[in-house]
Amino acid sequence: MLIVQKYGGSSLQDSGRIRQVADRILQAHRSGHEVAVVCSAMGDTSDDLIDLAEEVSAELPPREMDMLLTSGERISNALMAMAIRELGGAALSLSGEQAGIFTDASHGRARIVKVTPSRVRQVLDQGMIAVVAGFQGISEETGDTTTLGRGGSDVTAVALAAALKADVCEIYTDVDGVFSADPRIVERARLLESVSYAEMLEMSAAGAKVLMSRCVEYARRHGVDVRVRSSFSDHQGTLVSDSAKDAAVEGTSVTGVAGTRSVAKITVESIPDDPSFLVDIFDMLAHSGTAIDMLQNIGSPARPEFTFTVAEEDGRRTLELLEENRTRIGYGAVQCDGGVGQVSLVGAGIRSEPGVVATLCRTLDGIGIGVQLISVSEIRVSALCRADQLDAAVLALHRIFGLDSAAAAVVYAGTGR
Amino acid sequence: MLIVQKYGGSSLQDSGRIRQVADRILQAHRSGHEVAVVCSAMGDTSDDLIDLAEEVSAELPPREMDMLLTSGERISNALMAMAIRELGGAALSLSGEQAGIFTDASHGRARIVKVTPSRVRQVLDQGMIAVVAGFQGISEETGDTTTLGRGGSDVTAVALAAALKADVCEIYTDVDGVFSADPRIVERARLLESVSYAEMLEMSAAGAKVLMSRCVEYARRHGVDVRVRSSFSDHQGTLVSDSAKDAAVEGTSVTGVAGTRSVAKITVESIPDDPSFLVDIFDMLAHSGTAIDMLQNIGSPARPEFTFTVAEEDGRRTLELLEENRTRIGYGAVQCDGGVGQVSLVGAGIRSEPGVVATLCRTLDGIGIGVQLISVSEIRVSALCRADQLDAAVLALHRIFGLDSAAAAVVYAGTGR
Repeated sequence: MLIVQKYGGSSLQDSGRIRQVADRILQAHRSGHEVAVVCSAMGDTSDDLIDLAEEVSAELPPREMDMLLTSGERISNALMAMAIRELGGAALSLSGEQAGIFTDASHGRARIVKVTPSRVRQVLDQGMIAVVAGFQGISEETGDTTTLGRGGSDVTAVALAAALKADVCEIYTDVDGVFSADPRIVERARLLESVSYAEMLEMSAAGAKVLMSRCVEYARRHGVDVRVRSSFSDHQGTLVSDSAKDAAVEGTSVTGVAGTRSVAKITVESIPDDPSFLVDIFDMLAHSGTAIDMLQNIGSPARPEFTFTVAEEDGRRTLELLEENRTRIGYGAVQCDGGVGQVSLVGAGIRSEPGVVATLCRTLDGIGIGVQLISVSEIRVSALCRADQLDAAVLALHRIFGLDSAAAAVVYAGTGR
Repeated sequence: MLIVQKYGGSSLQDSGRIRQVADRILQAHRSGHEVAVVCSAMGDTSDDLIDLAEEVSAELPPREMDMLLTSGERISNALMAMAIRELGGAALSLSGEQAGIFTDASHGRARIVKVTPSRVRQVLDQGMIAVVAGFQGISEETGDTTTLGRGGSDVTAVALAAALKADVCEIYTDVDGVFSADPRIVERARLLESVSYAEMLEMSAAGAKVLMSRCVEYARRHGVDVRVRSSFSDHQGTLVSDSAKDAAVEGTSVTGVAGTRSVAKITVESIPDDPSFLVDIFDMLAHSGTAIDMLQNIGSPARPEFTFTVAEEDGRRTLELLEENRTRIGYGAVQCDGGVGQVSLVGAGIRSEPGVVATLCRTLDGIGIGVQLISVSEIRVSALCRADQLDAAVLALHRIFGLDSAAAAVVYAGTGR
């Protein structure tokens, strides 16, 4: 088997953890597998470097920030290669450029445009472990070092796995895998053995932080099997793949419950009585690169209003846009409410079970949680509530849909870091 | 004018110093000069990285150490470019590779084989300041990142200045320039306005730490004018160039006094009465890459022995070599004395002044210092004494040859770091 393993910063907190991870990598290699490893920067390195940058400059020019931050992965990578050698293995560290990760020139949030891992292949062919710097690439156009933005090392790992035609891409983190809910909120959250790309995408979009949507999307497009697992235990973790679709059919249709407070609710009052109004609003938002999540016309004819949600970080800009375009498009007051939470049920074919939405509403109503907005997609049902009621909503829904496990989940995040 | 400026780690100790240096760089740029800057890693970065490496591995594989250590210059460089921008200037950081510093593949002590600074030239042509990572290059053969070894950033600066045909290469350090003696020993050491390449080479070889021989040699071969000056003051510093030759003619023939304890004295006893003996010894040492500095046959016919000095770090290996080859070449006991000091007078045409050696011997004898070995070259006279008498020797010779200045030298090293 050819395995790509990715280790995040929390798995590489200090030299002791690096040695432990090196040992794990070597075990896989000694079991007869070819192993390519992708490392993030150690623990707090990136934060420390950002602090330094802020000390010398009010602005943080993206190209220089990329030159600065990518040193973090060069450090962790070189140390990992040394630690593997120290344990008797053979390893070689490669920068993003040396690993053939080519990107566009968007510093700080570059997209991968091409992966040519000939040097990685060569290292593997020599029986060695290739240790590749995550998060970074090189711009084909300018020859400058770029970074892939948040969750970039996961993307590096999946892209490398795709280009190498690896059998699996293992994403090591500080939890045992993907849970049916955040184990810090739901003590009896269930570790999922497998989820489909689509479910994982919805869970990531709905607030599950273990994998970012972008990484899952890349894996889906290239058919890369991703295994999310912990670097602190030997659990098999969760397999994210296409084959998981079938498995879900026999079980409950609800796979997991996700919650997020990173949502802003926007309400536009006194909207015109003209359907083209919505087109104008959507055009405006699309033009500014803002994605709408939930949306609903919940106004009465006497008090027509339009409500939708956007990611919290887009809230202020969306509000400004709406203020600027009030006269042109024609509507009344605009309100932005950041104090909301969004709870989501995710599961393949959830839409085809009409009882799900009813159960959701009845359950939340039963514990005094008012649903402000509700939306249904093929595999997700989301409801908007008050932020301070979110955890209670997640807990209740997790129980009512039969997701509670017999035993409490083990959470490493609090102790292992 | 095109100026290459190099700043060492002590000039880049923290973000405050980086901002000060950025201001100095901008002053040069705003005076109408083209400016390329070479930065070392900040203060203790390299030591911290080496500590980390030692925590994960007993061995420090040179290729991985190069990947690790070069991150230090990427950090300082990116920060410097940001600091310059913050002050309103335009700057771009370049890695050794991007600056076209090509080396051989000897990790940890690579030699520059080619400099193709087209990207640097391009940055300068756009009216920007090019900020180049010192100490690092890329192997033409393997495409791997390499480091140039001790004093590597100085070599980067001089090599870049040569390739760009710069008017001057300014080496910024924590002292005001090259002194007639180490100001920490000789309070009244004189700041030299100019020295020739040859004198600087001899002073470096004799223990002056401000510039390494390798850098001076590169400058001489390519005719680069080097100015050694302080980043803590506005002194003009010392010009190291060919033109300095003429200036020296009218003054005293002794330019400076240098002292070093990094010397090992080797004595070979009971040597054979056959001149081919020396050839055998020299061949053996040359083969192992050990340079002999001073040497003398000081044995009497009744007690024939041969004494020479090597760099302290070569002492042990030289001793081992001599032990191994005793039977083959044929000599008696071998002794290595590390407790010696070497004091040197350096100056153009020093050999042609026979009084210099006599004055040296008389002066040292006058203060009770026994000279163990003496050697004379075209521009240097060196004497070996006891290590604990070295500072007294330097002080006495500095005074007797009229080098004491009217005022005490300002030393920044103690306060500025």
